[in-house]
Amino acid sequence: MKLLRYGPSGQEKPGLLDAQGRIRDLSQHVADLGGDALLPESIARLKALDPSTLPEVEGSPRLGACVAGTGKFICIGLNYSDHAAETGATVPPEPIIFMKATSAIVGPNDAIEIPRRSEKTDWEVELGVVIGKTAKYVGEHEAMAHVAGYCVINDVSERAFQAERQGQWTKGKSADTFGPTGPWLVTPDEIADPQALPMWLEVNGHRYQNGSTATMVYGVRYLVSYLSQFMSLQPGDIISTGTPPGVGLGQKPPVYLKRGDVVTLGIQGLGSQRQEVVQA
Amino acid sequence: MKLLRYGPSGQEKPGLLDAQGRIRDLSQHVADLGGDALLPESIARLKALDPSTLPEVEGSPRLGACVAGTGKFICIGLNYSDHAAETGATVPPEPIIFMKATSAIVGPNDAIEIPRRSEKTDWEVELGVVIGKTAKYVGEHEAMAHVAGYCVINDVSERAFQAERQGQWTKGKSADTFGPTGPWLVTPDEIADPQALPMWLEVNGHRYQNGSTATMVYGVRYLVSYLSQFMSLQPGDIISTGTPPGVGLGQKPPVYLKRGDVVTLGIQGLGSQRQEVVQA
Repeated sequence: MKLLRYGPSGQEKPGLLDAQGRIRDLSQHVADLGGDALLPESIARLKALDPSTLPEVEGSPRLGACVAGTGKFICIGLNYSDHAAETGATVPPEPIIFMKATSAIVGPNDAIEIPRRSEKTDWEVELGVVIGKTAKYVGEHEAMAHVAGYCVINDVSERAFQAERQGQWTKGKSADTFGPTGPWLVTPDEIADPQALPMWLEVNGHRYQNGSTATMVYGVRYLVSYLSQFMSLQPGDIISTGTPPGVGLGQKPPVYLKRGDVVTLGIQGLGSQRQEVVQA
Repeated sequence: MKLLRYGPSGQEKPGLLDAQGRIRDLSQHVADLGGDALLPESIARLKALDPSTLPEVEGSPRLGACVAGTGKFICIGLNYSDHAAETGATVPPEPIIFMKATSAIVGPNDAIEIPRRSEKTDWEVELGVVIGKTAKYVGEHEAMAHVAGYCVINDVSERAFQAERQGQWTKGKSADTFGPTGPWLVTPDEIADPQALPMWLEVNGHRYQNGSTATMVYGVRYLVSYLSQFMSLQPGDIISTGTPPGVGLGQKPPVYLKRGDVVTLGIQGLGSQRQEVVQA
């Protein structure tokens, strides 16, 4: 099942994508796609609906982030060995965790704002994992039962803010629009193996990232269990699991986003995103 | 005005503390103390009420965190020169930002859980600044108009998770119960100068921290403006502004919390907290 949220920013309604690629409205069945609506029993209830009985949504509305009310937007740093290499770092002996501001979350096709005084706004295609059940001290064997689904995330990053403005990466990861999320929240039954998903990102049609979740150092199962040792995870929390090689910082010379650029990215089975770049 | 939230965890009601120190219920006037309820016009409306006309709350209910629906829990690192010195660090040339998980937020007198496998759970009394109006690229001259009020925060920290488990402090700052917040959200009219507030923390009656916001390196006005350059701030967001000297890590030898300890802390004009330490 592909769940989504459509409509103007701040007024999104819940929906699903039917087998013909049409949006069907879920408003009569769930208030929004966040919190308790992501619990296994709620997802099962939505899955039991016959999409053809749901109202079809006319036109091509804007898509919002595919999850509502995210409490934590947790990112994993340097989680692809080849990406670590391109940034001059080594693979960490255990996962690096940092937070993105939840206020950075936008729809998958909303514009990316280059922050004022930014010189190094960069891209990162990432597999997003959405939590569907509270996880606290869970073992790896039970970790996947806490996942509501997967989505595409662009972990937009300002490298100077991240690395040259005093410690802690959150400073370069949290600007408004730095977290395009969606188009869909895809339930695990559609993803046979989250560690075998081709992923890509292009800027103005030039392919910069061309990877696969197969080269992730710490996989989804491990990450959910690992994170739950340090903090509890709640329904709607997002884990963005790191990016494969090909970021702007890794180019020789480095390439950064500028006003008017168009970023497209996607992950197999999870859909694609398209963002125009504007100046804040 | 001293705003508060009282009642069982997850079912808190809004209230205020009257001049006689009694809790008065605000449920008829505001749904909860978060989001738009913190906007200047909403606070002004509450301030116009005559507390003696509000229902008095019987007994001594549990207090929840004094703010609801916090989207970001932003902390400032090494923001007191003498605390930086005790941890062996130097004062950073610009503020260090890190995030605490919002799921760490608890009431001011709730128990602190020592995480499993923790060896170095530590304390930090801090001045919390609660945002009352969206702030994005605001200058210092207009920063204070975005503050809804102040509160006491214990920025509980696991030093091994923070510093010995691979980069990014968020890992040691985010466990459940690591963010006691309150007892009250005190509006700025009651705080003549947020940079002149004595603050203290004791463990089992021994005074470890004895400082003042006067020795803060980057003050409230600067921090609100500074943070708003990197991310937008929304009503209900909390900025925890750093701690003065006297943390457990700074003792010789270091002292860390253990099951059964009692932590008490407070800031002049903002009330005090009391936490028993338990094992997760």
